[in-house]
Amino acid sequence: MTSTELTGHSVIAGRTVAGTGKPFQAIDPASGESLEPAYSQIDVDQLHEATAAAAAAFPSFSTLPPEKHAAFLESVADEIDAVRDEIIERAAAETGLPAPRLTGEVARTSGQLRMFAGVVRSGLFRGVRVDLAQPERSPMPRLDIRQRKVALGPVAVFGASNFPLAFSTAGGDTASAFAAGCPVVFKAHSSHPGTSEIVAAAITRAVKAHDLHPGVFSAIFGPGRTVGQSLVTDPAIQAVGFTGSRSGGMALVAASASREVPIPVYAEMSSVNPVFILPGAIADGVDELAAGYVTSALGSSGQLCTQPGNVFVPRGEQGDAFVAAVQRAITAASGLTMLSPSIAGAWREGVATRDEHADVAARGSEGEGPYAPAPVVHSASLDRFLADDVLHEEIFGAASLIIRYDTVSELPAAAERLEGQLTATLHLTDADAAEARALIPVLERKAGRILANGWPTGVEVGHAMVHGGPFPSTSDSRTTSVGSLAIERFLRPVAYQNLPEALLPEPVQEANPWGVPRLVDGRIETA
Amino acid sequence: MTSTELTGHSVIAGRTVAGTGKPFQAIDPASGESLEPAYSQIDVDQLHEATAAAAAAFPSFSTLPPEKHAAFLESVADEIDAVRDEIIERAAAETGLPAPRLTGEVARTSGQLRMFAGVVRSGLFRGVRVDLAQPERSPMPRLDIRQRKVALGPVAVFGASNFPLAFSTAGGDTASAFAAGCPVVFKAHSSHPGTSEIVAAAITRAVKAHDLHPGVFSAIFGPGRTVGQSLVTDPAIQAVGFTGSRSGGMALVAASASREVPIPVYAEMSSVNPVFILPGAIADGVDELAAGYVTSALGSSGQLCTQPGNVFVPRGEQGDAFVAAVQRAITAASGLTMLSPSIAGAWREGVATRDEHADVAARGSEGEGPYAPAPVVHSASLDRFLADDVLHEEIFGAASLIIRYDTVSELPAAAERLEGQLTATLHLTDADAAEARALIPVLERKAGRILANGWPTGVEVGHAMVHGGPFPSTSDSRTTSVGSLAIERFLRPVAYQNLPEALLPEPVQEANPWGVPRLVDGRIETA
Repeated sequence: MTSTELTGHSVIAGRTVAGTGKPFQAIDPASGESLEPAYSQIDVDQLHEATAAAAAAFPSFSTLPPEKHAAFLESVADEIDAVRDEIIERAAAETGLPAPRLTGEVARTSGQLRMFAGVVRSGLFRGVRVDLAQPERSPMPRLDIRQRKVALGPVAVFGASNFPLAFSTAGGDTASAFAAGCPVVFKAHSSHPGTSEIVAAAITRAVKAHDLHPGVFSAIFGPGRTVGQSLVTDPAIQAVGFTGSRSGGMALVAASASREVPIPVYAEMSSVNPVFILPGAIADGVDELAAGYVTSALGSSGQLCTQPGNVFVPRGEQGDAFVAAVQRAITAASGLTMLSPSIAGAWREGVATRDEHADVAARGSEGEGPYAPAPVVHSASLDRFLADDVLHEEIFGAASLIIRYDTVSELPAAAERLEGQLTATLHLTDADAAEARALIPVLERKAGRILANGWPTGVEVGHAMVHGGPFPSTSDSRTTSVGSLAIERFLRPVAYQNLPEALLPEPVQEANPWGVPRLVDGRIETA
Repeated sequence: MTSTELTGHSVIAGRTVAGTGKPFQAIDPASGESLEPAYSQIDVDQLHEATAAAAAAFPSFSTLPPEKHAAFLESVADEIDAVRDEIIERAAAETGLPAPRLTGEVARTSGQLRMFAGVVRSGLFRGVRVDLAQPERSPMPRLDIRQRKVALGPVAVFGASNFPLAFSTAGGDTASAFAAGCPVVFKAHSSHPGTSEIVAAAITRAVKAHDLHPGVFSAIFGPGRTVGQSLVTDPAIQAVGFTGSRSGGMALVAASASREVPIPVYAEMSSVNPVFILPGAIADGVDELAAGYVTSALGSSGQLCTQPGNVFVPRGEQGDAFVAAVQRAITAASGLTMLSPSIAGAWREGVATRDEHADVAARGSEGEGPYAPAPVVHSASLDRFLADDVLHEEIFGAASLIIRYDTVSELPAAAERLEGQLTATLHLTDADAAEARALIPVLERKAGRILANGWPTGVEVGHAMVHGGPFPSTSDSRTTSVGSLAIERFLRPVAYQNLPEALLPEPVQEANPWGVPRLVDGRIETA
């Protein structure tokens, strides 16, 4: 196992670069104490070294043959797995997240990179389409036209506070950008700089081992208002990936709007993930349902993008029994350490506001340390919920709102009133089929993922996953940030008309040397 | 043949609606005379009737079974073909475009709709992906997850001045939005209202014949600054398609930035379509080359998005011979009537500016009528071109710039200096292969379509076409506005996790009743 000595500095195109700005330290949220080392912050000139290097790396990195490209992704995965214990130790200190959760997150991160290696080998993402020449066509012959998707260019990725691995340095945005052939300039989140540095070093080793241009990857520490904004407006940057708060995401969207040349900004922001418990499901028994809800709402101290923040429960005896079971579980629960003092502070503020707008159904007890507030579940009538915008706001952390409805026929209109969401959940039995059928078309317009008889936390990494959705859950509903479709965020199509075979790039050559699937005259051909 | 009586009014969800605003009349650019009838302009309240109707039509229209959906598209095509002569007569009067060009454009418009009918039947655009359940997987079982693409919602389409049919009422934007399942609110271009009304009536007949919700289509006349802006910022509208000038497109992009909920704006704007004549090609003979250039540059009075506006020609005897042949042809050419007085005025202004920045290589003679200015070709050295931003600006119409280079090794850097383009063209022989190979990677970053030994005008409608490109040629390089891939602009993915088969929409049912191609556990399966 390689051991990473933390330098407290950025990595720009393979070099350790001491920033000129004021250093900062991570805080252990379990104790409130600062962690060594201090991290220097780069300035805007130093940032431009990273973006210029990424631009210089683009021509060679974006045209790697599939096997070399996939092997690089697998090496990044291997390098991360090799320092797993080191990552977990540091990440636990920086985030307060428990070791089992972090162990899973490392596996998810390296697994995701290996999935993208498979995507690169399969070649479907290259979007190859061939319209063969028709020299005999009248009145005009048709020329040979071939299309493929190419990488957009260097991508800026912003690390998330709540996933120090899977949505950070080598997380889904970086993995999908790398898979598309885009160099990455990664701006680390200030709450876990040590974890970021360890993973950045792992990526840097893989870049070197494969003899790639060092500009393929940089990981930088710097102030958001200067370096973060400059990263988004840098002419070399061609797309932005972000996971975080609504205000943070919208600040990047606004910054990008000031660019001379517009670029896509993929910001995954906020979601309350409504859950509709239909009458049949609640009649089927409430204990398992309540236990599933509480586990999903409180896990990782509720700090998950897909945490169930709104749960619609029917009135009546069974609904009351469900609420009572939830109350017992919440009352018995104590707070878990939150990711950072500022996140804990924002949570307390959000809960204090909600206390004034809804009833407290149950409150647990404070956990150990200063940043482990007592989990809480509020309740409100559907009418009150529909009338009060405050009750639609996300509270990031272990808080959730139970909304009591009278009849299931009220639910489609209630769903219509919701903002855009990452997920929407139905609990149902066969008896609820007609009502579910009325609700699903509304949920399709509101959410990126619809699930049945489960809870929205736990986002499977696969080909069919959508982790995205209408605004404000993301800034661009046309995509996903988890799963293999995420690669499409960093691609654009190019057509080649009447080019000699010898000048065509490999994916569109008639000989198809990379064996990519193709759409030939509108028909799918697998190699 | 149905004969359309022109009413001079908008069609809102199947009803003829007289606008409250000041009427306007189309102008015959051949004579400068006004054409009957006057067209009333709607106000913003009337606009909201159209967008509300589109929102109301969305649930049923977006879920049509493929055969009904495709049959509707084919009916629109048939209804247009049935009034072809009427369309051509009115469009010729409103645009000055010659009948053969308009005949081709009608065929292109109905052919495009039929292509999208085929796209709807094939089902590939539904993007179905299935990750099958793995109940035995450890440590956690995998749930069944299915993904498909759904329609975004009502789409606003702005008609183009230069394609009264193929990029207007029932043009590529409308056809691809309809194919995606999106209702369309079409804002007609004020230069050809009668053509727009005839085609709108054809669409309206098809909507009625198929008993669709009338909100599927509205065609409105109204002022850009009020009604056009309100259309882009209307909460019901979920995407915008536009073809026109850079200033017009950027005004819509800016308007959309003020929305609370951001939406994609697909604006196809400006391009000078560089053509690189390499030394081998010019050594091969100049007459055919010069004739091809002049035909492409002057056709449709140069008013095509893909008109060759910059042509790079080597210095030396053969290059001089090429220029001399171009000079002969241009000097002999006379102006063709431009689309409108304002377009002719903007052309004259652009040419007057260019006269001060480059040498006039050749100027033809004025054509008949007030709006048929003399075509012109300028020339400049490569150094002068690289140093002068004014020479990079598009002049919409029959003007083009020949740029003389010394050695082919200068071309990659020259291409790097260009703005984003719809197309880039190479003229080459086998002798030019090495130089072309150095140039193509730069052109891939600059353009949406690269073509060899042809001219960029004439955009084939097919599966492999890309009519799009980096800014400022479009506002979103990830797409195309021509060809079957254009449908993807109006779709977003939704995942279904663990839903009972009976509640799944048809495209993602395991039984696959619509026979759509699917990606099952990452492997392509055709039905």
